[in-house]
Amino acid sequence: MPLSEVHSKKLEEAIKALHTRGHYEAFMEDPRSYPNDGQKLEELLGTNFSMMGEDAKDFLESSEKSPFTQQMLGVSYPFLNTSTLANQAEKAFEVWRKTSREERASLLMGSLDRIAKLFPLMAEATMHTTGQSSIMAFQASGPHSSDRALESLAIGYELLGRYPKHADWHKRVGKQEIHLKKNFVAKPYGIGLSIGCSTFPVWNSLPSIFANLISGNVSLHKAHPSAVLPIALVLNAIREEAIEQGFDPNIVQLAIDPKEGPRTKELAESPMVKLIDYTGGSPFGEYIESLKGKITFTEKSGVNPVLMRSSENLNATLGNLAFSLSLYSGQMCTAPQNIFIPAEGVFENGELIPFDVVVKSLLKAIRGISEHEKIGPGTLASIQSEQTIERIKTSSNSGAQILLEASSFSDSHFPNSRNSSPAVLLVEEDEMDLAQSECFGPIAIVVKSKSFESAVKSAKDLAAEQGAISCACYCIDGKLNEWVADEMNQSFVPVSFNLEGYIWVNQAAAFSDFHLSGANPAGNASFGQVEFVSRRMVWLGNRYFQKPE
Amino acid sequence: MPLSEVHSKKLEEAIKALHTRGHYEAFMEDPRSYPNDGQKLEELLGTNFSMMGEDAKDFLESSEKSPFTQQMLGVSYPFLNTSTLANQAEKAFEVWRKTSREERASLLMGSLDRIAKLFPLMAEATMHTTGQSSIMAFQASGPHSSDRALESLAIGYELLGRYPKHADWHKRVGKQEIHLKKNFVAKPYGIGLSIGCSTFPVWNSLPSIFANLISGNVSLHKAHPSAVLPIALVLNAIREEAIEQGFDPNIVQLAIDPKEGPRTKELAESPMVKLIDYTGGSPFGEYIESLKGKITFTEKSGVNPVLMRSSENLNATLGNLAFSLSLYSGQMCTAPQNIFIPAEGVFENGELIPFDVVVKSLLKAIRGISEHEKIGPGTLASIQSEQTIERIKTSSNSGAQILLEASSFSDSHFPNSRNSSPAVLLVEEDEMDLAQSECFGPIAIVVKSKSFESAVKSAKDLAAEQGAISCACYCIDGKLNEWVADEMNQSFVPVSFNLEGYIWVNQAAAFSDFHLSGANPAGNASFGQVEFVSRRMVWLGNRYFQKPE
Repeated sequence: MPLSEVHSKKLEEAIKALHTRGHYEAFMEDPRSYPNDGQKLEELLGTNFSMMGEDAKDFLESSEKSPFTQQMLGVSYPFLNTSTLANQAEKAFEVWRKTSREERASLLMGSLDRIAKLFPLMAEATMHTTGQSSIMAFQASGPHSSDRALESLAIGYELLGRYPKHADWHKRVGKQEIHLKKNFVAKPYGIGLSIGCSTFPVWNSLPSIFANLISGNVSLHKAHPSAVLPIALVLNAIREEAIEQGFDPNIVQLAIDPKEGPRTKELAESPMVKLIDYTGGSPFGEYIESLKGKITFTEKSGVNPVLMRSSENLNATLGNLAFSLSLYSGQMCTAPQNIFIPAEGVFENGELIPFDVVVKSLLKAIRGISEHEKIGPGTLASIQSEQTIERIKTSSNSGAQILLEASSFSDSHFPNSRNSSPAVLLVEEDEMDLAQSECFGPIAIVVKSKSFESAVKSAKDLAAEQGAISCACYCIDGKLNEWVADEMNQSFVPVSFNLEGYIWVNQAAAFSDFHLSGANPAGNASFGQVEFVSRRMVWLGNRYFQKPE
Repeated sequence: MPLSEVHSKKLEEAIKALHTRGHYEAFMEDPRSYPNDGQKLEELLGTNFSMMGEDAKDFLESSEKSPFTQQMLGVSYPFLNTSTLANQAEKAFEVWRKTSREERASLLMGSLDRIAKLFPLMAEATMHTTGQSSIMAFQASGPHSSDRALESLAIGYELLGRYPKHADWHKRVGKQEIHLKKNFVAKPYGIGLSIGCSTFPVWNSLPSIFANLISGNVSLHKAHPSAVLPIALVLNAIREEAIEQGFDPNIVQLAIDPKEGPRTKELAESPMVKLIDYTGGSPFGEYIESLKGKITFTEKSGVNPVLMRSSENLNATLGNLAFSLSLYSGQMCTAPQNIFIPAEGVFENGELIPFDVVVKSLLKAIRGISEHEKIGPGTLASIQSEQTIERIKTSSNSGAQILLEASSFSDSHFPNSRNSSPAVLLVEEDEMDLAQSECFGPIAIVVKSKSFESAVKSAKDLAAEQGAISCACYCIDGKLNEWVADEMNQSFVPVSFNLEGYIWVNQAAAFSDFHLSGANPAGNASFGQVEFVSRRMVWLGNRYFQKPE
């Protein structure tokens, strides 16, 4: 199908945004822009979720359970064995690989329209699988994911025009004029496997799925067993659009685990799988990266530092930081963990505020959120997995001094919510064992540092060794900040300086911010980068000798 | 130093050529354009080769020996231990990484000017280390290498402007207008190691060295012990230019092996080495690719097919093929090896020429070169290593039918030349063991195929399993050729159709042809591709909060 005028214009805007890198959102953030006139989550509970265009016989119930209500969702999904999935994918690939970039873009733009209609339902599904608050679930799985998906699509669309389709090559050799016609083609690899995670089942996978599809690859999605529904809705929308546009819906397929346990390795090791996108813990991520003959895109664990030095308004600074730590109870790969505060204290407009006072104010700001009846539950939301609750306990029993104890809090809307206020621990810079690895969840570690300079060095070294995705620096000395940026950038971590108000270090905006650098142990992928898409296709130039006239 | 007007114009032209992909050469191919008014090879024989700006104490004699004369070159090179090399490189990197793209381009364009003055000397040095003929040694190490180096430079220069240096990001959230300034920076990794090969010591390494330097990395070159001089001359020219432009010459360094044996692994595994470029055999290439935490660019072994089906002029076709097989005695990674000829024969203008007649004509065309007193030695030249001579014997004793026996021939200019006419062997398509792996050197294997179609399938599968860099197809049916291109492209091998006259499948032209696809077992690098350079730098966006006015 040719690209409609509306889609063509939107795609053009998106491509422009890739280059200007200012604020751009193709999908508005406000839930009120998306009236829910479709299905509600409760209508899906306890049902078989059919995938469009698939005549599945076996349905398996997932282990999805709402972190807010502790109720099982009871949704069952079609189960296909790995060879069936691979064979269906190969068949779909045979046609899809030969489509033009316009055909691919048309299908993907149409899919995005369909997905947008599902935003309210996806928000509910995301909330009750990940434990995200309603608004975060809406934005993360809805407009933010779709913006990132469009970003992949825009990058890929532009890429496919990187070289002319045909070129004439003339060269005089002695008396002969050699003329070759050259055709440049971008060949996809085949099947791309994306491995979903439990905390951001759509946001972390949709950019990969779109990157695969725009490049001419087909997509096989292995959903996390505790967060299937949000991504199943999305995959189904793409399948619907594929059918509508006359393509095999198996260009995207959902793979769920059998009763016996996970089959991620079985899928990843399948010789037919050529590309793998993975989000999750480092040990499995390293296994994925080690697979021979696969192109991999990983997002693994990391330890994100906060560097404190000076502020014009310490309360505003600490308020911003406290919110960053509290948002979705730190269950974000971009959430800060290690807060480096110099032992001598932090400057506020030239005045040195002692370490203890700074820490006290930080704790107050955190409690101001977690103990606030309305803001608390809406910000901290719920804890996705029992392991995170365990992790809070383990960290708190690590021997580090406890500055603030974690505890569950009452959520008036969800009395059974599994939740926790943040634990804040204290370590010295030269005894920072606890701070050396990721403590995923509502766990913040104050590192009492010898100096700001030594804190920067520690954070830089730790990022190089353990990985980091984000770094917040609060320092109002521009010259010093140049140095901080250069130091942290050498460990391939970007720095956000002096954030205040409604913008937090956890956030990365499509079309402007890359997500991960791909160059430290936190992962080898970089969302929003040209290479996130270009590595999924291979350019070849065929040469045709032309007889002299 | 700012870019001179001449350099700036040349660079602009080169960037334009990257996109149009027509014929472009920045360095003329004709040796007569480069008068040798400098040093001659004989002046260097038996001397210590000093590197500019390096106060070396230890010199070690290399094992370089002319394949034409069997005389040792007797040149000694400075030896520095690995930690000294790495420390010097790190020191140079500290400054080089902060240079602008204009400064880098200025140094590299200046280096190319210096290198061009050395072309005649480099040609002699290449000839008497690799065994290439005089003209090939001149072109391969001279203009062709410099064109590829300029190609890397042009790609990198353009890449460094991929994103704006600064962007303003404004977003309204409720009543707050958030304003972030974002700085986009491309950070290099550090030390790039290039591992040279014995047959194309300059051509296979200079593009990597330039790709490293334009990205802000520094380069450490491990020369092959039997081909040091050609690349030492180049590195020295870059060092001279660095000194001239006020930079530390250690942005490029030569590493030679100690007396005890190779230290390639020691260099590759050094934690300070982040990028590795390698050309050579597959087992070592796979080891390089397996190194954790390194970005690698490899060119390994492959098996290049020739597919025969039809021709308008079979003699012209076979003449072209015979030359491709003979050029530098097949010691090129792009040289054809397996010649698939259908059992039924080959069509010439609709007439079926029987298999035996085609084979006979091919042998005649090959002998027409190898037995020709003038053309023979000038085309086949000399054999770089004793192992290749051994390989000819092993292949000939493999049990495959010998169609043409290899033998040494007389070279009037170099009576002691180690050389060999091509061996041509015959296997059946279903018993093609010998054809399944690379037989580097003057060894051609005729594969008697069930049909053209089955030959294409066999070649496609073999390329996917063993790798291939080039594929020549002689077929005048356009529809069929579309199919052949699609099939071979699926194994990520480009196809050259119906070459005739002064153009051969072995050749890949800078600015137009990619060298390797990087997507089959023949290697993971692709010369001339954007990613050949972009993977050597990491883009980061730092964000600076701007207080509302």
